[in-house]
Amino acid sequence: MRLRALAVSLLAAVAASAAHADEGMWQPHQMAELAGTLAARGLEIDPASLGDLTAHPLNAVIGFGFCTASFVSPQGLVVTNHHCAYGAIQYNSTPERDLIAEGFLARSLEEELPADPSMRVYVTEAIEEVTDQVTGGLAADLSDRARFDAIAANSKALVADCEATAGYRCEVYNFFGGLRFYLIRQMEIRDVRLVHAPPEAIGKFGGDEDNFEWPRHTGDYSFMRAYVGPDGKPAAYSEDNVPYRPRSWLRVAADGPAEGDLVMVAGYPGSTNRHRRASEVADIVDWRLPTLIDYLQEQLAVIARETEGRPDAAIKYAATVASLNNGLKLYSGQRDGFARIDAVADKRADEAALAAWLREAGDRSAQLDALEGLEREIAAARATRERDLWVGAVASGGLVGTASRLYRQARENARPDAEREPGFQARDRARNEAQLRQLERRYDPQVDRALLAMKLRRYAALPAEQRVPELDAWLGLRPGRTGVPDLDARLDALYAGSGLGETENRLRWFEADAAAFETADDAAIRLAVALAPALERIEDAAKARDGRLSVLRPQAMQAALDHSAAQGRPVYPDANNSLRITFGSVQGYSPRDAVAYAPFTTLGGIVEKHTGEDPFDATRAQLDAIAAGAGAGYAAPGLGAVPVNFLSDVDTTGGNSGSPTLNARGELVGLLFDGNYESLASDYVFNPAVTRSIHVDARYMRWVMDTVSGAHNLLDEMGLPHGEAVR
Amino acid sequence: MRLRALAVSLLAAVAASAAHADEGMWQPHQMAELAGTLAARGLEIDPASLGDLTAHPLNAVIGFGFCTASFVSPQGLVVTNHHCAYGAIQYNSTPERDLIAEGFLARSLEEELPADPSMRVYVTEAIEEVTDQVTGGLAADLSDRARFDAIAANSKALVADCEATAGYRCEVYNFFGGLRFYLIRQMEIRDVRLVHAPPEAIGKFGGDEDNFEWPRHTGDYSFMRAYVGPDGKPAAYSEDNVPYRPRSWLRVAADGPAEGDLVMVAGYPGSTNRHRRASEVADIVDWRLPTLIDYLQEQLAVIARETEGRPDAAIKYAATVASLNNGLKLYSGQRDGFARIDAVADKRADEAALAAWLREAGDRSAQLDALEGLEREIAAARATRERDLWVGAVASGGLVGTASRLYRQARENARPDAEREPGFQARDRARNEAQLRQLERRYDPQVDRALLAMKLRRYAALPAEQRVPELDAWLGLRPGRTGVPDLDARLDALYAGSGLGETENRLRWFEADAAAFETADDAAIRLAVALAPALERIEDAAKARDGRLSVLRPQAMQAALDHSAAQGRPVYPDANNSLRITFGSVQGYSPRDAVAYAPFTTLGGIVEKHTGEDPFDATRAQLDAIAAGAGAGYAAPGLGAVPVNFLSDVDTTGGNSGSPTLNARGELVGLLFDGNYESLASDYVFNPAVTRSIHVDARYMRWVMDTVSGAHNLLDEMGLPHGEAVR
Repeated sequence: MRLRALAVSLLAAVAASAAHADEGMWQPHQMAELAGTLAARGLEIDPASLGDLTAHPLNAVIGFGFCTASFVSPQGLVVTNHHCAYGAIQYNSTPERDLIAEGFLARSLEEELPADPSMRVYVTEAIEEVTDQVTGGLAADLSDRARFDAIAANSKALVADCEATAGYRCEVYNFFGGLRFYLIRQMEIRDVRLVHAPPEAIGKFGGDEDNFEWPRHTGDYSFMRAYVGPDGKPAAYSEDNVPYRPRSWLRVAADGPAEGDLVMVAGYPGSTNRHRRASEVADIVDWRLPTLIDYLQEQLAVIARETEGRPDAAIKYAATVASLNNGLKLYSGQRDGFARIDAVADKRADEAALAAWLREAGDRSAQLDALEGLEREIAAARATRERDLWVGAVASGGLVGTASRLYRQARENARPDAEREPGFQARDRARNEAQLRQLERRYDPQVDRALLAMKLRRYAALPAEQRVPELDAWLGLRPGRTGVPDLDARLDALYAGSGLGETENRLRWFEADAAAFETADDAAIRLAVALAPALERIEDAAKARDGRLSVLRPQAMQAALDHSAAQGRPVYPDANNSLRITFGSVQGYSPRDAVAYAPFTTLGGIVEKHTGEDPFDATRAQLDAIAAGAGAGYAAPGLGAVPVNFLSDVDTTGGNSGSPTLNARGELVGLLFDGNYESLASDYVFNPAVTRSIHVDARYMRWVMDTVSGAHNLLDEMGLPHGEAVR
Repeated sequence: MRLRALAVSLLAAVAASAAHADEGMWQPHQMAELAGTLAARGLEIDPASLGDLTAHPLNAVIGFGFCTASFVSPQGLVVTNHHCAYGAIQYNSTPERDLIAEGFLARSLEEELPADPSMRVYVTEAIEEVTDQVTGGLAADLSDRARFDAIAANSKALVADCEATAGYRCEVYNFFGGLRFYLIRQMEIRDVRLVHAPPEAIGKFGGDEDNFEWPRHTGDYSFMRAYVGPDGKPAAYSEDNVPYRPRSWLRVAADGPAEGDLVMVAGYPGSTNRHRRASEVADIVDWRLPTLIDYLQEQLAVIARETEGRPDAAIKYAATVASLNNGLKLYSGQRDGFARIDAVADKRADEAALAAWLREAGDRSAQLDALEGLEREIAAARATRERDLWVGAVASGGLVGTASRLYRQARENARPDAEREPGFQARDRARNEAQLRQLERRYDPQVDRALLAMKLRRYAALPAEQRVPELDAWLGLRPGRTGVPDLDARLDALYAGSGLGETENRLRWFEADAAAFETADDAAIRLAVALAPALERIEDAAKARDGRLSVLRPQAMQAALDHSAAQGRPVYPDANNSLRITFGSVQGYSPRDAVAYAPFTTLGGIVEKHTGEDPFDATRAQLDAIAAGAGAGYAAPGLGAVPVNFLSDVDTTGGNSGSPTLNARGELVGLLFDGNYESLASDYVFNPAVTRSIHVDARYMRWVMDTVSGAHNLLDEMGLPHGEAVR
């Protein structure tokens, strides 16, 4: 599902590339450039309105956790995906009243349920370019690391100033690899309530098994409502709060789209890497993906082996296994996607054309130098990638990872809070403590030891120049020797000599200072202290490289933008969690020889998939409604059946979940909720032949609300007919 | 794959039903009735020619083991499926020269290799109705069993008379459930040689994984040649033999078919049950399929459990597991097929219409009585089906099954050879002895014991009226007690007390007489002797039922034929291994919501499926030829690519493998080699929406022969261009 990626790198790596076909996650202000294209594609509203944050429809598109949502009534009614509202549904569920299984419908404002307190709605109110303030005043002779730190400090200052007004959250976003910075200001609504969710058997029909798959039959929608204080300003939950009155809201279309129709999606895509250099993509294809796939498979094999016949241990690793399998599907999808096209060759051709153009243009030697410098940095990172991966792996997760994080926390604690690394600040304390408490529920010493042994063997197999003396010393590795001598004995001593398997010990160390760690006799902590200098060198090198890249990438990007501008081709920046618009059309695709996927699924497909067992356990009420032909007025004329989900070639990624899908008149016709398996490689390259987004058809949402859930109050609120009134 | 079923019941159960759409496996003489339909569908040759066994094209269509084949040159060149020629390829393979892996091409007659001596080509020369001779003279007052025996004796006499001419094989075939009998005379060619086979990576590309699946990319073709003595008559292999000169042979079409084009298949389909009563189909859907699926799954589970960590035992059961999985796919496909349509309701509607017509017609009381009698027989069989299944299961396979067969052999040996049961005659001796020798390669006492225990527990769980006293006594089951007391001890005694696990003992008992069995102290033989009366009662009851059905089914069938004739609807008989013609058109289908299967696959799909590992391990030569765009002249105009396999809705079943696929001009455009998964239920009902046959496109065969295998001598022999001459 299209949840936004959690981590957003300040300096996401980007390089030059241009848009093709319907590829493109455009910044609102770029819509003016695309006005001609959109008009030709059949847009019936003024393209300029799509660039105006303060007007309909963009004004109604809101950030929602790691998702997107939209206002659909003047009373602050919000529609988003079921999987985006899942936390609120779960939060309100009890053994007596399981809202996940049963679904939920508030028939009045009074019946609406407060979401968990961390849930937020963000309304983007201003986007302001701040490139000059972030990088304009930096001295040319700053060291790499100092430059990195200065950019971070300038950004923090802008954010602090902007957030001086209560009720707002601000962030500096990096566009085009550090070429441009924008300060984005969002109103933060803190009182969000659950209004309506279908049963999980509809909202999550197909579950993980159908994740990324087509054909799809998921009713992935839910309704929330934004509340503010009686003064109209954001406020914490209170019974006195009133529904927020948005400046605008989306109208649900009377009809749905047909195959070939223009659709647009506005939302908050998280992260893409479309502007990477050919050599970076080659590294990903040739090294990163096979290495990670192999590593994930080996972890799964180790866990399977070590938990066989030990159901308690298996349960502890169930979530880890699910997460590893999810990663495996992602990386496998990327690998399979790269196998369909020669992305590296395409990029090399683009780069050759750019270099030729720069050389012809004259006076572009600085940009040509930057391109060469970029290639040198990429090559330098390649030289240490195995070391960085395996040293990092040894110091992550389980016993050693916990010891490492505890020691880092102790060292960070010695600095003023504002100067600490993200993740170790005061605001992170509660989450970190909770993780330390929960570790035992996801930790088994036998499994952990086997995983660590596997990582150590992989590390030890690296050539000497890819290793670090600290870990070599701990392992007893010496030049000319192969394998890990006495690994079993070392691991015996490590696990027998550490108390970090116990919650109370972990919590005690959570309060300790660095000196206590450095004189500890806990074996895992001694290993963490020994490893720390190596990890610090690796981190320092990465930050210095980011400092150098913060000079090189913008120059390279500018060269590419100049080249594209000379050809009249607009260029979109990589996704970075900021508001974007993408457009395309409803269309199927061919996943393989002799197979065609139609762009619409229908109610009949639910009956076909229904097995009676999760995740294909449709409700009796729904099956009866389908069998009875209820709500036939929601049928799509071209299909002769009620559509459930549809495909389009709009360009989306994680974070777009819940985004409104708009028709040529700017009306809501669906909700984006996933991409197809073939789209997984679109993190790097957009292959227009097979990259598709998956939407819930609004007609299905209305069909369920009308004929199964009886959510007539909400249909009324959105001004939609129901029952007999639907033809 | 469409191999013919081994067992052909003399009295296959049939009842009334009529043909729809392109459903129908027609007898050659019925083509005259269909002339109008065929002309309307675009047939360009005289429909009457399709009914003439002595003329082109039927004359060129030949029986080939459990498959079909056809002559494609005046020198007796035969084309059939790779999987039909597999025995000949395997027979000629050695560790030094692996023809399965490498493929084979004889560049001259001298290089052709003799197939294994059991391989035969059968040329149908005459089909004569013999109903009067088989059932015409039977006294009305014969007992059920006597009637059964008389039909068998009359048939045997006709066959013996017909086979008096050397070089011919004759058989009496039952059509329409015993309503009509035909004597079919075939010339039996015994010298068959291997001419050409592609590598298995082409001829069996996709292997078992793709069996019954679409999209498909299998080059399932091979060439053989029929040889006869210098006098032109069938003869055993000899260097002096010469190529057989068939009366006619098929021409390979210059072009292939396009979507929607008429195609016909002539061949030898093995067995269908389309004329079953609704109540019989209900029994199959409600009881037989779930019971068998459950039984197969339990056998697989037992074998998996008992061979875990015992690789030697696992190898012994590998073929059994493959066979159980094949059955599981077949029955699951039938179950899934029945889930798509309400076959029972459709049949009940047909039966109600028939009964109403009979009642209205008057003077049809005998037929109405027969229909009622049929229902009584079906109900009676239902009453003992659990007993028949589980007693039979206990007495089949492994230790107890071997003991049972040995004792039966000894009893049959006491009768004149001609009166023995099929399978126990002199002609079966060599095969039976070979099976006794081979048992150890497929037998492990621990696994066999666990399987037997499972069957015995299932038997013991039956209600008392479904059990037999002989087995109850052996198990110590007594009224009022539940479960099997001391089963482990009984099985210990059985396995410890039998020497039949040793080949020499089995071969010794193979020579023993019945009296020796009846006084034996081998525990398994004692059980077999004890069980024999129960098995005999079950067999006698089945034969008596068949005797009654041999009166009832023909009457019921005649009623249905009269009804269809009154409506002008031709009716085809169930498949029974005799020569049939089916026609239809090239077309894809939708296997499920939002998915469409195109009717053609292309070379690109081979590259997509290629993993480098069996069964998706395309040869380097083939991949290179595809990458180079070699043989582009074989491309289908509408596809812009070389087609590999195609789908049609012709009506085929096991036995049709290798059948020629003909176009409207009677030219060969492909070879039938499989049905799709959705066609598995077509043993009972033909669902025109999803039932499809799978063909190798002759263009693919020619493309491989031309660009990969260099089989230019055979292309020349068939009068086909190659190399530069192909456009």
